[in-house]
Amino acid sequence: MSSHHIVRDDQEPALIIANGASCKQELLGQLLEWSPLVIVLDSAMERVLDLNIKVDVLLGDFDRGFDPNYYKEKQFPLDIVHTPDQNKTDLEKAFDYLIERKIPAVNVVWATGKRADHTITNITTISKYRNLLKIVLLDDHSRVFLLPKKFQKWYPARTTISLIPVGQVTGIHSQNLYYPLANDSLTIGYRTGSSNHVKEDGLVVIEHEQGDLLLMECWD
Amino acid sequence: MSSHHIVRDDQEPALIIANGASCKQELLGQLLEWSPLVIVLDSAMERVLDLNIKVDVLLGDFDRGFDPNYYKEKQFPLDIVHTPDQNKTDLEKAFDYLIERKIPAVNVVWATGKRADHTITNITTISKYRNLLKIVLLDDHSRVFLLPKKFQKWYPARTTISLIPVGQVTGIHSQNLYYPLANDSLTIGYRTGSSNHVKEDGLVVIEHEQGDLLLMECWD
Repeated sequence: MSSHHIVRDDQEPALIIANGASCKQELLGQLLEWSPLVIVLDSAMERVLDLNIKVDVLLGDFDRGFDPNYYKEKQFPLDIVHTPDQNKTDLEKAFDYLIERKIPAVNVVWATGKRADHTITNITTISKYRNLLKIVLLDDHSRVFLLPKKFQKWYPARTTISLIPVGQVTGIHSQNLYYPLANDSLTIGYRTGSSNHVKEDGLVVIEHEQGDLLLMECWD
Repeated sequence: MSSHHIVRDDQEPALIIANGASCKQELLGQLLEWSPLVIVLDSAMERVLDLNIKVDVLLGDFDRGFDPNYYKEKQFPLDIVHTPDQNKTDLEKAFDYLIERKIPAVNVVWATGKRADHTITNITTISKYRNLLKIVLLDDHSRVFLLPKKFQKWYPARTTISLIPVGQVTGIHSQNLYYPLANDSLTIGYRTGSSNHVKEDGLVVIEHEQGDLLLMECWD
């Protein structure tokens, strides 16, 4: 189904398939195309197997009577990484695994939808990996990543851009957003920059001084 | 379909149907049963109409070429509340509307799923309404509400309970949780209390000193 098992270039982002709601087949197919490494979290493996995807790593605490060895025959070669640490989520353990293997970037799918606690934890945990791993979290309606202190990217006019602070973020300045920010602060739960959009075709610049700021490109 | 248009008691929670992913018909039916007031946000009305629900209030900025008056004929009586303020989300405006009408409690459905920016903003915005409105946000996998400084409730053993801080929460103590908290701090993005569970049948007590702490009852 994908060429990822032929082209192996660790500079391309790895792909983590987490255990939330499935995304559309089209999105998954695009991400698999160039992914040098596919990691599946725990019992998501049951759903992934049905999709005829070549999986490289199956990672989890396997604490719900799920037998990972069953998949060794179905997928060869398959690395099974048992991570029993209860202080981290399976997604965090997969990030740690990639850092250990010196893989610099990763796309994550199936990390949202279903349980609200998993969704909010998976999205906000990106903050913790600043400077360690370039993470992009995707679903059928969203593309989420952590902003560096100065971010610049070309966008078409009217692209929806949401700025979501993980905690409090201060000293935010923007260029080419419809609702501009000038030395503004955002605080989760109290004031977020949700549903802003790009003013005109061109470079969007977003700077901030302190805190963790997520950019979400979203569509209905 | 429901008796909510017969029994009108403003002490029962109102129901807001937001514009995210639809929930199962069964959950919606249970909530409608006793709800004295049903508010639908903006273009969610298109999906609600198909479900044969009596709507009392249609609220939104109606900024996407959506004509609310079309529904006046379909639903009688129907209050249309036009809220053009771009500094608040439609959900926040619906909360403000309920406070204005002195309705003390509300259940919210369809507030999660689909766009990640809406999901995270809708969940965390509950914090802002402490002491103003008792809000419970529900979907097919989750029941979310803000904790008072001291919370007590009876739960069966093994119920999953996630404690999600909106920002930073300090001085957290728990009784009868499997992973106990004793003067602990939680910080969104860095350390959350996701996927804890109840130790034995009985009262769970959760106290905290500072900050906004969400409790999520979640299931797969």
